[in-house]
Parts: sequence; structure tokens; C-alpha cells
Amino acid sequence: MKQMPKFAVILSGCGRADGSEIHEATLALLAIDNNACTYQIFAPDIMQASTINHLTSQEQKEKRNVLEESARIARGNISALSSLNINDFDCILLPGGLGAITNWCNFNSKGLECDVNQNIQKVLEEAYKNKKVIGAMCIAPVLVAKVLGKNKITLTIGNDKNVKEIIQETGAIHEDTEATLACVDSKNLIVTTPAYMLATSIKEVATGADNMVLAMKELVTRS
Amino acid sequence: MKQMPKFAVILSGCGRADGSEIHEATLALLAIDNNACTYQIFAPDIMQASTINHLTSQEQKEKRNVLEESARIARGNISALSSLNINDFDCILLPGGLGAITNWCNFNSKGLECDVNQNIQKVLEEAYKNKKVIGAMCIAPVLVAKVLGKNKITLTIGNDKNVKEIIQETGAIHEDTEATLACVDSKNLIVTTPAYMLATSIKEVATGADNMVLAMKELVTRS
Repeated sequence: MKQMPKFAVILSGCGRADGSEIHEATLALLAIDNNACTYQIFAPDIMQASTINHLTSQEQKEKRNVLEESARIARGNISALSSLNINDFDCILLPGGLGAITNWCNFNSKGLECDVNQNIQKVLEEAYKNKKVIGAMCIAPVLVAKVLGKNKITLTIGNDKNVKEIIQETGAIHEDTEATLACVDSKNLIVTTPAYMLATSIKEVATGADNMVLAMKELVTRS
Repeated sequence: MKQMPKFAVILSGCGRADGSEIHEATLALLAIDNNACTYQIFAPDIMQASTINHLTSQEQKEKRNVLEESARIARGNISALSSLNINDFDCILLPGGLGAITNWCNFNSKGLECDVNQNIQKVLEEAYKNKKVIGAMCIAPVLVAKVLGKNKITLTIGNDKNVKEIIQETGAIHEDTEATLACVDSKNLIVTTPAYMLATSIKEVATGADNMVLAMKELVTRS
């Protein structure tokens, strides 16, 4: 049994509207630490699709870099996603935030015909092939479905009817799940939680993150 | 007894090197929610003193606005600090991060001769005068000492010898405190916790934030 599963946490920027959702990312790190696991943080070294003023929700002219902005959440302890070696980890964890579908892929504008960043596609495919546990929060499961849905994985984005239908077009199976719970596909080693797709408080996000990480740890340690 | 103390959480940007430390701010919000209290978030509508690339620690040319960047942590639910009415709250909470001593005041460059943003000075003075509970994390107690030290308040920034000496020049009393604990001045209604001044893990920051909020709540509900 592995005592301290190692998590690679992948970020997509810093802020719900153009990067990683900050509470989700922070509370995922806390859940990993609280469950006696360890983490390293990664992000693709690419420009953000857009920069959104989070006060006005308007797009700003200024361009920002995903790795540099993600470094704010990581307190500087972060590496380029291209350097991630899947053999070094037991789990891959993807927090939500619109960066998941604007920076990691362009699902937000193109739907299922979207292009996926090559580094994140490779990480997800290798994680699946090598029986690593994949965790995803909020809207990030859409990317997991795009890349791995053909394997008939089961996941959740909460209960949004439109997003559910799109996810199921990939071959993935959607399971309605409450904000504080995790949807566990123990065959395919995929764990997802709705986070701010459904949560109405930061406490609910923390509980959902904790249940997700606990389920991921159990999938690692049983193997 | 007040059942659900109301917290005003004040931010100084979004990132440890030029704004609010993201984990500290997020975990303060979680602690407030976990302790059955409520919060509203504020930040001054001013330009940041600098923008720091958190990957390289180098200064960037681009200028950012404190309120707009703080809105990333607040998920858009934030108001200008000038609109804060102290009568609406029981507690004022200041997370750390270098923004506390570069944006709220310029202590980082000028030491105790620093200029303090008028809005935050007013909030701290009115909070003290009206017997509201003031909480501060990490380096933020330096600002509290600058504004209220003459009242011989007791607080902590952990155990840093140089910062301790400077704080005591204001008249404040410094008390060495472990990362997971809170320093409680029950006479002056000031609660402080070292957070990343000492913490070596996110779990320690969460525990310190929780102990700080719990002590603040007890000071409110006993009154």
C-alpha cells in the first residue's frame, strides 16, 4: 500500500473567469495536505485566451501568461506542464474555473470540436493508460470527457442539463452529484466533484474537495 | 449574544508578492463560513504599488488595480473599501501578503514613517473606537501596529526578530506565537496569527486561520 500518494495539481491561471477558480485550487491543495498526501503544481506555459476584469466581467486588452498567473496560487512553487513526468505521480488533479475550457482547450468557444493543448492531452492520456487516478472539479470534467470520454468513463459536472448532454456525446456517462460529494468511477479511476457548478458557499467547495481527494487516495492505496 | 458575527474581509490584491496572499485570504473566508459567521469583501480602489511576476519574482511593467485583482479572490463579490460602514460589521479581518505593506501602506519601502491609505486608516481607527474585533494575519499586523500601536495593543507576526523590534517601536507589544495558533488581545479586541510568516504547509495556515476566527467570534459573542 502506498502511504502518501503524490498529486500533480494542474492550474489554468488565477481567477474564475480566465483561469483556475482560486477557492477550488486552494481547497484542493488543503484537502491533499489534510489527507496526508503531497503535491506539486504545474501549468502550461502559454498565453491566456483572454484576460477578464473580475470586477466588471469585461475583457481587458492586456495579455497574461497561464504559468505566471498560476504561480500566484502556487506561491511560486510551480513548473511548466511540459516537464510533468507521469511516472512521478499517483494522481492528477484539475481544479475548475473557466481557464479549464478557455486555456487548456477552447471548448468554451468551439464545443466538442475544440482543440486541446497538447501537453494536457498527453498528461490525461498517459495518466489513463498508466492507471493513475484523475480528479477534476467544477467545469474541468468537460475536458476529461473530451479526451477520455470514448472509454465510457463516468463523471459529474453537477446537474446542468446542457453541459450533461454535451458530455454524453463524447461517450462519457454523466451522474448527477451534490456539491459536497464526489462522483467516483472506480473502474476508470476518475473522481469528480461539482464545486462551484453547484456550491453556494466556500464550505461546500471545501467539503467536496475533501471527499474528492479522499476517494482518489483510496483508489491509489487499494492498488 | 450575537449568533452570527459579520466579518468585513479587506484584500490588497491577488498574490503574495504584490497583493493578498491567496491561501491566507481563501482560508480566512473558509474559517468564517465554517464557524457559522458571514462575510463581505472589500478592497481599496487604487493602483497596486507594483506588479510582480510570481514565477520569476521580477517586477513587471504592467500596472494593476487592487480592487480589480482582489475581485479574483472574491469571485466578483467585492466592494470598494470607501463604501465600508463600520456599523454594519462585528469584525474586520486583514489577510497577509506583501500587498498589506505595499498597497495598504508603503511600510515595505519607508518603514514606520510610511504613509497609510486613508480608507484603511479610517476603518482601523473606527473599528478600534467602536469596539469591533480586528483580526490580522502574516505581515498585516505591522499595519495594525502602525495605526493602533500607541494604544499598547498586543499582537504577533510570528517570531521574526527584526519585524518584532520595529513593531514594538509603535508602542505595541509583540508576543511570539506558533503558526497554528492565534495571539489574542482580549482587552483591545485584536487577534493575530502568523500564517506564512511561519507556516510550512497550507494545513498550518488553515488551522491558524480557524483559531483566529474562532477567537474573534468568541470576543464578539461574549459582548
